[in-house]
Amino acid sequence: MNKIGYLGPKGTFTEMAAVSIFAGEELVPFETIPACMDALAAEDIDRAVIPLENTIEGSVNMTLDYLIHKHNLPIIGEVTVPIEQHLMVHPSRAEQWREIEDVYSHPHAIAQCHDFLTDILPGASLHYTNSTSAAAEKLHDDPSMNAAAVANVLAAEQYGLTIVNENVHDYENNHTRFVVLAQEASMELQPAASRTGDKTTLMVTLPSDFSGALHQVLSAFAWRKLNLTKIESRPMKTGIGNYFFVIDVDQLMDDVLLPGAVAELEALGCGVRILGSYPCLFSVEEIESTEKKPIPK
Amino acid sequence: MNKIGYLGPKGTFTEMAAVSIFAGEELVPFETIPACMDALAAEDIDRAVIPLENTIEGSVNMTLDYLIHKHNLPIIGEVTVPIEQHLMVHPSRAEQWREIEDVYSHPHAIAQCHDFLTDILPGASLHYTNSTSAAAEKLHDDPSMNAAAVANVLAAEQYGLTIVNENVHDYENNHTRFVVLAQEASMELQPAASRTGDKTTLMVTLPSDFSGALHQVLSAFAWRKLNLTKIESRPMKTGIGNYFFVIDVDQLMDDVLLPGAVAELEALGCGVRILGSYPCLFSVEEIESTEKKPIPK
Repeated sequence: MNKIGYLGPKGTFTEMAAVSIFAGEELVPFETIPACMDALAAEDIDRAVIPLENTIEGSVNMTLDYLIHKHNLPIIGEVTVPIEQHLMVHPSRAEQWREIEDVYSHPHAIAQCHDFLTDILPGASLHYTNSTSAAAEKLHDDPSMNAAAVANVLAAEQYGLTIVNENVHDYENNHTRFVVLAQEASMELQPAASRTGDKTTLMVTLPSDFSGALHQVLSAFAWRKLNLTKIESRPMKTGIGNYFFVIDVDQLMDDVLLPGAVAELEALGCGVRILGSYPCLFSVEEIESTEKKPIPK
Repeated sequence: MNKIGYLGPKGTFTEMAAVSIFAGEELVPFETIPACMDALAAEDIDRAVIPLENTIEGSVNMTLDYLIHKHNLPIIGEVTVPIEQHLMVHPSRAEQWREIEDVYSHPHAIAQCHDFLTDILPGASLHYTNSTSAAAEKLHDDPSMNAAAVANVLAAEQYGLTIVNENVHDYENNHTRFVVLAQEASMELQPAASRTGDKTTLMVTLPSDFSGALHQVLSAFAWRKLNLTKIESRPMKTGIGNYFFVIDVDQLMDDVLLPGAVAELEALGCGVRILGSYPCLFSVEEIESTEKKPIPK
């Protein structure tokens, strides 16, 4: 059995991502992204699952900073998880949920459900917890509270709460990307069912003349008909005026086109580092044995 | 006196940003980014200061989502604040700070100081609070705790704590960008001292063929020698395969070049929206009457 580290606590979207691809393995929650990456570098764990894009649990900047400046840990997979927040209460309060006086959740989750909370529970007081699952745990521990939590389906299961209103977040189509890191590059993650494509992530440094040089960089991809799915500029830590780019290409490393683009970029004076070449997986929400209950609206 | 809304609570980096440009005005903390923007749209406040880039307090995705999908509130200024985290204790414990047993802070701040805490205070237990300033408040309220907080200089002042170790974050050159929003475009923010430049932020939508079309978009800027300082692709909320770009140009809207680039992009079939054209300000850390104490190392 492998040890899979992830950004905890239990009951968060990162755990949902980890469970969806590593069911049956030993899952080990870590308190912070750097602690999880350090453990992987030290070989205390075999794989790490951490958020790459901005989410209520983590920070893209932190993950990228540590991937680029501190560790050389290849990305071996990406997992996209739909961010679906639900309103949940202790089962004894499910009938009278409209009368609840207090709502608990992580500050970002409260913000994501701003319109719902303002419209449907205008009189409720809002209280912050350190994670969405901590809010669910609180309600589980003290059934006497006339309160609801905003959290995900995993937290509802874990703490025996009843979901009384599904998808209470303001915007649809919210997804968060998590990456799976390993000590060495690997193509082990290939479950056909949930595979949505492949990706190669490059870090390209560009010492000066941002717009002209970036235009050149994109030429190297455009004339080879290599499709990009993401481009993001980030300032180097070394000073103002130096940038690097994180570029996602929608295919695995091949023998001709991608190596050709990389060679062309290096000839232009750019630095190129391949952060990973890996399959993209999609995590469906219904994990394990969730028994669906009818939802009163 | 104007009412300036900002993402609270008091003692956070967002308050530092707000104080640095709106000293003397009435500052009103809001619990969430959407609540602050709603209040501005409803004219309950005159200006709003919210984080635009990823930070321990907020989320770029949320700010951009609400700016693009919900409100039409122009950016009238940008404030960059250096993110400097310090280790602080109750004054009665300043001598024995190396013996503290517990460290309190926001989870992202704890993560940002991972190396320092692992090296210097390996035996201390880590505890999470909802904001860095909440950690400082906790120590202020209960001097009997043998504990330290990781927070900023404003929180140390506000809660009368002694900074025993400065700049305990792992990476230097951490800055966070905040934006000032108003109901209407304005050039009112022009304090010469801290002005580092100007910026125009465009949202460009690109229906298909990401890499080829983006290459064309950049041509419109490159041949006019318009310098970009940031480019970021984001998926539209309407479905997979549609993207928009947030592009920063390092100058104010002019009469010829920028309107020419916009017209060219529109002729190529892109949608263009100007999110703001505004001065960039830099917030120095020493605000108000901070009395510097010697720092034991």
